[in-house]
Amino acid sequence: MSKLSIILFSGTTDKALAAGVLAQAAAAMGSEVTIFVTFWGLMNFTKAEKKMVLPKEFEQMGPAMMQGMAKEHVKSWYEMMLEAKEFGAKIYACSMSAGVFGLKKEDLDPIIDDMVGAATYLQQSEDGQALFI
Amino acid sequence: MSKLSIILFSGTTDKALAAGVLAQAAAAMGSEVTIFVTFWGLMNFTKAEKKMVLPKEFEQMGPAMMQGMAKEHVKSWYEMMLEAKEFGAKIYACSMSAGVFGLKKEDLDPIIDDMVGAATYLQQSEDGQALFI
Amino acid sequence: MSKLSIILFSGTTDKALAAGVLAQAAAAMGSEVTIFVTFWGLMNFTKAEKKMVLPKEFEQMGPAMMQGMAKEHVKSWYEMMLEAKEFGAKIYACSMSAGVFGLKKEDLDPIIDDMVGAATYLQQSEDGQALFI
Repeated sequence: MSKLSIILFSGTTDKALAAGVLAQAAAAMGSEVTIFVTFWGLMNFTKAEKKMVLPKEFEQMGPAMMQGMAKEHVKSWYEMMLEAKEFGAKIYACSMSAGVFGLKKEDLDPIIDDMVGAATYLQQSEDGQALFI
Repeated sequence: MSKLSIILFSGTTDKALAAGVLAQAAAAMGSEVTIFVTFWGLMNFTKAEKKMVLPKEFEQMGPAMMQGMAKEHVKSWYEMMLEAKEFGAKIYACSMSAGVFGLKKEDLDPIIDDMVGAATYLQQSEDGQALFI
Repeated sequence: MSKLSIILFSGTTDKALAAGVLAQAAAAMGSEVTIFVTFWGLMNFTKAEKKMVLPKEFEQMGPAMMQGMAKEHVKSWYEMMLEAKEFGAKIYACSMSAGVFGLKKEDLDPIIDDMVGAATYLQQSEDGQALFI
């Protein structure tokens, strides 16, 4: 696979983890990886402290999940995205969503490379695989 | 990108918005866009009044989101889908899901072009990018 | 479409149904189909009894949905996946997620063909369509 684009729309921690695992693995294999963080996804990419949010249906499994992750030495989604970036991945924030939630570039975590619009995302993801997470 | 197919499975308003933004942007850029509305997604495409439904995890952010959308002059998902259609996008309802929820063609919002099955969707989306929303 | 890869991340029954319908239809049409079951998705693939879990936002529609499915003779997601497998589809469990939830190969439903990692999934899905469900 030469190109993987991930639209990270969800704001729950489990979905950020999925995006991190896929981005890290694909970038390590030499793919051109782009994560486009939009809507609730942005909640995990401000400078505020990261909070764990799980989908209501599986919230009660949070403690078992955290224990399992520690036992298996699974890295956090943030660390996996940093690793993906070392392999060349780019992380963009959706400018329209940032505007809706009143977030400016300086409010965002420095892991974000830039703020771009949907049209730019679509151009960059052209001809590659895309996942909506 | 020459072809974008969106499976709109979710019935929450935020996901309809994501589908609308991507469909509108891609269609405006000249892509062949198809939205295949299925399962809970159909709840937003009946002739009944559109209700705002947000994911439980972020429900409390609804008022801030609505204010932000008004301030940034973000159009509704419905308006964006109408614009996408002006650029040639097609919106289909999943016939199996419609059957499950007891919906007939005449119960659906006229923005729906036709009712089709999963096999038709798969044929139409062949060789393009596909997003499950 | 020659290749369809489905990442089944969600653990709710409606999403398993979506994966089953798409996998069955695509495999019946001759596509090479792979389902990669990960994270909450695994909850439906242990040897324990399958439980119906619906997203909180639409939970109250569960009874109407079940009645509609019975009336329309919609098969269960499990039956649809079995049919997809008869057409050659493969179903893999994510080894990292299985580890997190303390699940071993022998704990998984025999519908699972094998346990694989994210890198293997990415290689197998290369050049095909991919859906994150």
